[in-house]
Amino acid sequence: MNLNSQIHAAKERVESVLNAIFDRAIDSDTKLQAAMHYSLSIGGKRLRPFLLYTTGQIFGAKAADLDVLAAAIECIHTYSLIHDDLPAMDDDELRRGQPTCHIQFDEATAILAGDALQTLAFELIAEHTFAVPAEQVIKMLAVLARASGWRGMAGGQALDIAATGKAVDKQQLEQIHNLKTGALLCAAIELGALCAPQCDEQSLVALRQFGKSLGLAFQVQDDILDIVGDTATLGKPQGSDVALNKSTYPALLGLAGAQTYAKTLVSECIEALKPLSVDTEALALTAHFIIERNH
Amino acid sequence: MNLNSQIHAAKERVESVLNAIFDRAIDSDTKLQAAMHYSLSIGGKRLRPFLLYTTGQIFGAKAADLDVLAAAIECIHTYSLIHDDLPAMDDDELRRGQPTCHIQFDEATAILAGDALQTLAFELIAEHTFAVPAEQVIKMLAVLARASGWRGMAGGQALDIAATGKAVDKQQLEQIHNLKTGALLCAAIELGALCAPQCDEQSLVALRQFGKSLGLAFQVQDDILDIVGDTATLGKPQGSDVALNKSTYPALLGLAGAQTYAKTLVSECIEALKPLSVDTEALALTAHFIIERNH
Repeated sequence: MNLNSQIHAAKERVESVLNAIFDRAIDSDTKLQAAMHYSLSIGGKRLRPFLLYTTGQIFGAKAADLDVLAAAIECIHTYSLIHDDLPAMDDDELRRGQPTCHIQFDEATAILAGDALQTLAFELIAEHTFAVPAEQVIKMLAVLARASGWRGMAGGQALDIAATGKAVDKQQLEQIHNLKTGALLCAAIELGALCAPQCDEQSLVALRQFGKSLGLAFQVQDDILDIVGDTATLGKPQGSDVALNKSTYPALLGLAGAQTYAKTLVSECIEALKPLSVDTEALALTAHFIIERNH
Repeated sequence: MNLNSQIHAAKERVESVLNAIFDRAIDSDTKLQAAMHYSLSIGGKRLRPFLLYTTGQIFGAKAADLDVLAAAIECIHTYSLIHDDLPAMDDDELRRGQPTCHIQFDEATAILAGDALQTLAFELIAEHTFAVPAEQVIKMLAVLARASGWRGMAGGQALDIAATGKAVDKQQLEQIHNLKTGALLCAAIELGALCAPQCDEQSLVALRQFGKSLGLAFQVQDDILDIVGDTATLGKPQGSDVALNKSTYPALLGLAGAQTYAKTLVSECIEALKPLSVDTEALALTAHFIIERNH
């Protein structure tokens, strides 16, 4: 199976898991649940679930356990998108070409849908019976919480807002992205590994290094696409970072400089995988895919 | 120690635990952390931590473990208040006589501070080493998540918004409050018990029944105070429910009817405690306190 098929398979799989959660729900016709389900269904590449499945499969994790973690991480990612799109934040009306949650429903419902999706992530994990010991499940919950909270994604979003319209250097931009995007991408990889009984601490260290470089490469490519991509492929207006006066890698390093930096980061990804004794080809291909994608 | 001293002691204790979290924080001067700490510090009775400590102590839970759970539940409660106060929700400028988070900071920061406080609740629990087995800790996380999410507090808030300005009957009002307020109060009691190694399932069932009646009594008294209380004591404008066109127990049952109902609920609380073999005086006193308080 080539990488595109694998990405597609992971996407189909997590979407069916997410749909099943809402099929099971009582009172599934309430507006809150409709809003949660709507935003979860908007789609996207499902990169975090893909990374989680890929890593978990490499280390022999149980498929049903990975399903729960993949759904959970997508709940966290989706909650962050709903809140980022709010008028008080990025004020976006479209997300992947579809009305954002507060446009499709209303602002109060969008705030609550984000809130409830965050909770759902922890609920899904805490209510599932995993094949690994309970101590390991608590570790997963800690990893997910740390990556999402004030010292992770939410903290990065706050720094990003604070930096908007200000001059930031590469180090500051890196810190913002490591937190805002990198932490959750990294958590996806780590959760996949933690879900596998035979993943040791040394492998986790290597995977974290891989995840960190991958997260940055992803962000650099995102910034590049904001300049060279077109609106239809991106699903959001091309040039929106510039319009929002956000600091970007092409602005800091020039377009060619940003492209070179993305390649360096992918080399770092490949380097980070070397100590691992398992077949990491899928992860290596993913790193290349990250900077070759056009949306 | 009488009930007031116990309430005061629990309040002091959880506030010192919460402050310590922020003292330890790196980059504690960022706006996000300042906003989180600000809203956590606004105070209030700290009823949920009090219920948690009281129940935990009755069943012999470890104090340091209760501290973590008390801080976590107060993080969840505070996040919900920050988001409830937002312009798109209740649009409140004052909370306990102080500027609400989005007034003191800004709306984007308030959204993120609420988000990050929710995450922090799960992070605190997942990163603490409890005296009880890991399986029990996962149960606690599941209880907290379920009480907070779409089938708990957030779901109740959504129903409350949907019901505003509409005629609702007592059963619908009860469902709203059971979810919006009751679920987290109940979780506080359950978490205290789950934290104690010797709390059995039968006791948990009794405590859940106690918590459910207590949560309703609390809400009925809240509605009564909105009519008979004064703005200075309440810390919010008296009559604000009426102004917001919210359904209340006095509106449904009349003031005297609501007062009678509150007393019935307290009797149910006392009844629920009977099967327990431990000294439940503190919980019984709390039930009476709930409907005798004037703020």
